[in-house]
Amino acid sequence: MESVLEQLKSARAAWASLSQATTGVKNLALREMAEGLAAARAEILAANGRDLDEARQAGLTGALLSRLELTDKKIEGMVRGIRDVEALEDPIGRSLSTVTRPNGLQITKMSVPLGVLAVIYESRPNVTSDVAALAVKSGNSIILRGGKESLNSNRAIAGILRKALVKAGLPADCVQLIPTPDREAVQTLLTATDLLDLVIPRGGESLIRTIVENSRVPVIFQYKGVCHTFVDESADLKMALEVVVNAKTSNPAVCNALECLLIHRSAAARILPALAERLKEWGVEVRADGPARSWMPGAVEAKEGDFGREFLDLVLAVKVVDSLEEALAHIQKYGSRHSEAILTNDYANAQVFLKRVDAACVYVNASTRFTDGGEFGFGAEVGISTQKLHARGPMGLAELTTTKYLILGSGQVR
Amino acid sequence: MESVLEQLKSARAAWASLSQATTGVKNLALREMAEGLAAARAEILAANGRDLDEARQAGLTGALLSRLELTDKKIEGMVRGIRDVEALEDPIGRSLSTVTRPNGLQITKMSVPLGVLAVIYESRPNVTSDVAALAVKSGNSIILRGGKESLNSNRAIAGILRKALVKAGLPADCVQLIPTPDREAVQTLLTATDLLDLVIPRGGESLIRTIVENSRVPVIFQYKGVCHTFVDESADLKMALEVVVNAKTSNPAVCNALECLLIHRSAAARILPALAERLKEWGVEVRADGPARSWMPGAVEAKEGDFGREFLDLVLAVKVVDSLEEALAHIQKYGSRHSEAILTNDYANAQVFLKRVDAACVYVNASTRFTDGGEFGFGAEVGISTQKLHARGPMGLAELTTTKYLILGSGQVR
Repeated sequence: MESVLEQLKSARAAWASLSQATTGVKNLALREMAEGLAAARAEILAANGRDLDEARQAGLTGALLSRLELTDKKIEGMVRGIRDVEALEDPIGRSLSTVTRPNGLQITKMSVPLGVLAVIYESRPNVTSDVAALAVKSGNSIILRGGKESLNSNRAIAGILRKALVKAGLPADCVQLIPTPDREAVQTLLTATDLLDLVIPRGGESLIRTIVENSRVPVIFQYKGVCHTFVDESADLKMALEVVVNAKTSNPAVCNALECLLIHRSAAARILPALAERLKEWGVEVRADGPARSWMPGAVEAKEGDFGREFLDLVLAVKVVDSLEEALAHIQKYGSRHSEAILTNDYANAQVFLKRVDAACVYVNASTRFTDGGEFGFGAEVGISTQKLHARGPMGLAELTTTKYLILGSGQVR
Repeated sequence: MESVLEQLKSARAAWASLSQATTGVKNLALREMAEGLAAARAEILAANGRDLDEARQAGLTGALLSRLELTDKKIEGMVRGIRDVEALEDPIGRSLSTVTRPNGLQITKMSVPLGVLAVIYESRPNVTSDVAALAVKSGNSIILRGGKESLNSNRAIAGILRKALVKAGLPADCVQLIPTPDREAVQTLLTATDLLDLVIPRGGESLIRTIVENSRVPVIFQYKGVCHTFVDESADLKMALEVVVNAKTSNPAVCNALECLLIHRSAAARILPALAERLKEWGVEVRADGPARSWMPGAVEAKEGDFGREFLDLVLAVKVVDSLEEALAHIQKYGSRHSEAILTNDYANAQVFLKRVDAACVYVNASTRFTDGGEFGFGAEVGISTQKLHARGPMGLAELTTTKYLILGSGQVR
């Protein structure tokens, strides 16, 4: 894929300017990007219409088609998203620490851009502008590789963003879309260790696993979110009902939704019947083990495959455990290291849960649905990482930076 | 390699204890490790003697043999190294940030151990105890893969360290040596994404490139250190002589040593003749471009391959440049993103150099030899990273940690 290599080279050349751009210039580019998208609504919708026609001919329906579809409202959301990023603090040029050593050397650890990023994503075309805005704000060039269904939409959006960069005095090649649906293009990205600094895949587990398996370039990812909530013996009934129902139903299609409820045997009789009723009102299908079913009329029998499964739907696995230890062991075995919660009024159990659960986010007495860059106060979310290097949990702009040490001397020798 | 997989599994099982160990228990383990090594000097020297015999029979000589050789003094150094790590602050359980969100959720970002590390290294057997101590202090299990020449020494050392762990109440399997020289063992490590969290290779560039090329597990590495010093027009003569000579000669075999001097044309006549004399006194071979040679009697002609080369010896490449821009372009093309310095009295040029050089460490008016965990005040050095993810520059104990978010609520829902 000669052309992808050329794109990477020009992205790196463009980075020389972008990495040195002031906050003012980057914010100007973001304003131009927002205004450009707002002004080109008709053009974008026309391109999206071509994608939708092709998708319908290919037999796409339902959720897939609606993810692909852009509307006036979605374009407004894209514009607002860029303006939100403009309003965020610049993550670059921040001193993370400064020490003056006994010999007088002053050593400052400074946040700087990473370089060239690639984002590989699936059908939603609004990702194109979301991640381009985050890249520009953090001083990184970006190579966009969207789904083949949304290629016309992405081409239109990327073209507008590139014109906006030029209006702000930055090189267009800071933002580039891979213009073809070839799979080889991805392979070229994943082996371009000298040109590409980071790959961020966004999409289903199989896409992500393929990328992690094949990439020589560092990858930050989450495979999936199989979130548990353990209702301890001492859990408050009302809180348990509200938190569990919220975690399961407020947006079941996302990675921080609850997938499996664990409940202490001593709390089952007190909590499960009322919970079963509430879940039924919300249309949740309960798949429970034997002991839980005796307290949850209408629950179906949980099969082994229901534990550790990311339903992404109004389905909840339920299991009764005899102890905190058993809950911890279950989470260790079936969890995805994403978000895990305990509902308890027992201080010691809360501490043990916080300390021993190995996950990006560990909760006491709250819904796992809060694992989100916006809810954490980051202003924007690049994604969520369930791996442990560089970034873990919700990723904001700071996670798109690296550091360099600046050492100011006056002739020191060693 | 079934057995390496078994080692990884038992290292991960052992990590469950180590990751929860208090600072007191980890420090006790380190004391037992130090005392165990000190008491077993004869056993270690005997094992090392077998390695030396085999190495001599295999024809090893000179530097390679002396790197392999352990002495009373080197063992004392290993013991002292462990005690130094014991004295360092525990990097685990530190709150890196805490925010209370408007809804009352308290979100703390806490430092926690990574999990299981593998260190792949070459002939120096003292690395075995150095990195094991760092791993234990940072709560990480470690798989050690040393060079085949030092296998007997490493076995003896690892055996002593494992006994020390048990004495402190920790599982021996927190520290494991791969007991065979098979190459397949490394391949098994590099694909064990579910069991291994990080690979750190220490050694020559070819070893490291092979590992980076083949690893599916995240790798933190430095390929090499091709460090430049740019002597600007306004550089002070005395400072230039001292810093350049120090950077080149104080330890030419290490990655932070100076390999290439760039000098502004306007400073050449003023500085190069005196510098040539000083370098000659230190026995440095100068390989210079045409303009530089006219000011440096005795310099040989630099060939293209001498720029960008890591000599690791008393050899220095020298090039005259017409401007700061040309120096920056040279460093961009030939540098290894490790440590780069400018010697100048020009404020604006210093700022431009700091901002535009893309390297782990950028110096003004100091020797590049300071790029070192000890010199940076980290107390211990795990290595130096020239890649950009997770850690860049000298790595201390903090770089062997990840984070998790602890979220304390009182029934919050979204």
